[in-house]
Amino acid sequence: MVINYELIAEDKKTGARAGLLHTPHGTFKTPMFMPVGTQATVKTVTPEELEDMGAQIILSNTYHLFLRPGTELIREAGGLHDFMNWHKGILTDSGGFQVFSLGAMRKITEEGVHFRSFLDGSKQFLSPEVSIHAQEDLGSDIAMAFDECIPYPADYDYADHSTARTTRWAERCIKAHTRTDRGMFGIVQGGMYKDLRKRSAEEISAMPFDGMAIGGLSVGEPHDLMYEMLEYTTQFLPVNKARYLMGVGTPDCLVEGVARGVDMFDCVFPTRVARNGMAMVHSGRMNMKNKKYEKDWAPLEEGCQCYTCTHYSRAYIRHLYKSEELLAFRLVTIHNLYFLLQFMRDMRQAIIDGNFTEFRENFMANYKR
Amino acid sequence: MVINYELIAEDKKTGARAGLLHTPHGTFKTPMFMPVGTQATVKTVTPEELEDMGAQIILSNTYHLFLRPGTELIREAGGLHDFMNWHKGILTDSGGFQVFSLGAMRKITEEGVHFRSFLDGSKQFLSPEVSIHAQEDLGSDIAMAFDECIPYPADYDYADHSTARTTRWAERCIKAHTRTDRGMFGIVQGGMYKDLRKRSAEEISAMPFDGMAIGGLSVGEPHDLMYEMLEYTTQFLPVNKARYLMGVGTPDCLVEGVARGVDMFDCVFPTRVARNGMAMVHSGRMNMKNKKYEKDWAPLEEGCQCYTCTHYSRAYIRHLYKSEELLAFRLVTIHNLYFLLQFMRDMRQAIIDGNFTEFRENFMANYKR
Repeated sequence: MVINYELIAEDKKTGARAGLLHTPHGTFKTPMFMPVGTQATVKTVTPEELEDMGAQIILSNTYHLFLRPGTELIREAGGLHDFMNWHKGILTDSGGFQVFSLGAMRKITEEGVHFRSFLDGSKQFLSPEVSIHAQEDLGSDIAMAFDECIPYPADYDYADHSTARTTRWAERCIKAHTRTDRGMFGIVQGGMYKDLRKRSAEEISAMPFDGMAIGGLSVGEPHDLMYEMLEYTTQFLPVNKARYLMGVGTPDCLVEGVARGVDMFDCVFPTRVARNGMAMVHSGRMNMKNKKYEKDWAPLEEGCQCYTCTHYSRAYIRHLYKSEELLAFRLVTIHNLYFLLQFMRDMRQAIIDGNFTEFRENFMANYKR
Repeated sequence: MVINYELIAEDKKTGARAGLLHTPHGTFKTPMFMPVGTQATVKTVTPEELEDMGAQIILSNTYHLFLRPGTELIREAGGLHDFMNWHKGILTDSGGFQVFSLGAMRKITEEGVHFRSFLDGSKQFLSPEVSIHAQEDLGSDIAMAFDECIPYPADYDYADHSTARTTRWAERCIKAHTRTDRGMFGIVQGGMYKDLRKRSAEEISAMPFDGMAIGGLSVGEPHDLMYEMLEYTTQFLPVNKARYLMGVGTPDCLVEGVARGVDMFDCVFPTRVARNGMAMVHSGRMNMKNKKYEKDWAPLEEGCQCYTCTHYSRAYIRHLYKSEELLAFRLVTIHNLYFLLQFMRDMRQAIIDGNFTEFRENFMANYKR
């Protein structure tokens, strides 16, 4: 297989585990956070800056690239790695999540999803085959199966039928996958129903995917329910494949996800809140537009080794936000991503050192959502 | 003196000259272009990127920093160099140009200029003494005298009286200047009247300024008139001091300015047009939103050694603009500034090599405004 997960250490009290993910573009340490580069760019930063902060794999969105500039154009460019100048790992989602979010703008059939482009209203179609073909044009190291992300709440019948279709679509994705130099992950659905989660996990695990994603969580349900469904699901996943919890990226969810055996996460949270003026720190977050930082000469977080914290004061960053200077977005994006990437590195070390539970308790005691 | 100009080479056929400018933050090669960092940041780029592209001195605006975050706050930060993390040269303008541009929002008296803040409507006052004090708080290597930039067109009487006041204000700036570790340039005015230009040049040259700026050009007059007034003025300026043509930054004006003996230039042009999608090249400029670049895998300019051209295609940059990604502004800002800085380096080398006239003719033959 082109993607391999290697288990390095397991925590004795929780499901937390440290590992290595071998991919066509390098071997990466897990648990890991993947910055999101929706439109073939992680907003405001360059690939070199991502590398400097220790990013290993980034996520890019098939839905957006399919509509603009088109996945064929990116294939002509030599693939997404060359197009955007990022030569480490890339995971692409399938586009399923975005087209299902379109509501009245889309129509689901067994064949796939018909929808209108948000750019020009043109008729578009995504299916397991179209999505996998598009992702192979992009040349991502890890393609994601085309699934349906069940909304929350959803009644049992809907979840049951949708989960069964996700399994049928997974089989079509396996058949559509032609690039032997690239990997593909399956996605477990099942809504908030344990029997459906179990069935989905077992069905998807039985297929020759390179890794397993837990989809359909962090879609509006309470945190406790998310943690419960996650913990219930992971027990049915193979130990020798990476596990990826999709769309999760606040520090509390990351530590709780890791405690339940998750290896990979992605979320727009750190980059999006940076553009709203929010800096992430161990105690929660800081609104950098706040007057109280006007003459605060400290870095965003004491001890942080990111480019922003080693070169700029809170006062300067506040000035940039108040002056609507684009450098503000960039400096805080760099800090927030570094913060999460370092947070994952610290968790990994704690797992290896055998003190993950202490790390988790200390962190949760100080963190304010 | 804390700022010294050292003449290295003179062109035999034109007034072009190559030199070194010694400042408290290093020795810099002239002729030079100074990127503009209005609000204590050159829009979208970091100081490290400026250094990588070979920027030597940047310009920052006293008017903007005086209103926000306040020059006293920047003094508390240790000065503008520390506040913004730029440790090479900084030149600050006096704020005069901006307050005179306010039209009905300001009132000029012999004492100074009363105006309203564009941020909150509060009453503000700038004068030679206030401006120099503010610039000393900023700690710029080169402060600019507080003058009146005469609009175009202006009748003789207005220009006469205004130019006389600029001289009186220059004397007050000299008296107000207290930091012996920082320099100050005088500014020649005189509108489009040769006798006033001569008088102003002689009066300002007689004062103990560290360098001489030519102000009041590139304010709407035809290029030929600008070149004529510039050429007429520079003959009255001391040979042993640097000459700075304010607010000029298109390549054609730079080469013509250098030909008339100018050593220093600044302009928002390269950074502003980058945010509008324009890339600067030797033949003129390219609108990167244009459909024709959709599948153009070439760099912005063949042979350019900037970060952008060595890592990205026109097609990728077009995609970023079409997708409204902030990285577009940054990549083209980097290219445009590199282009102008390299253009100045090439001109300097041509002067030293004795082939400036050939350089100028070749350039002007291919350049489209």
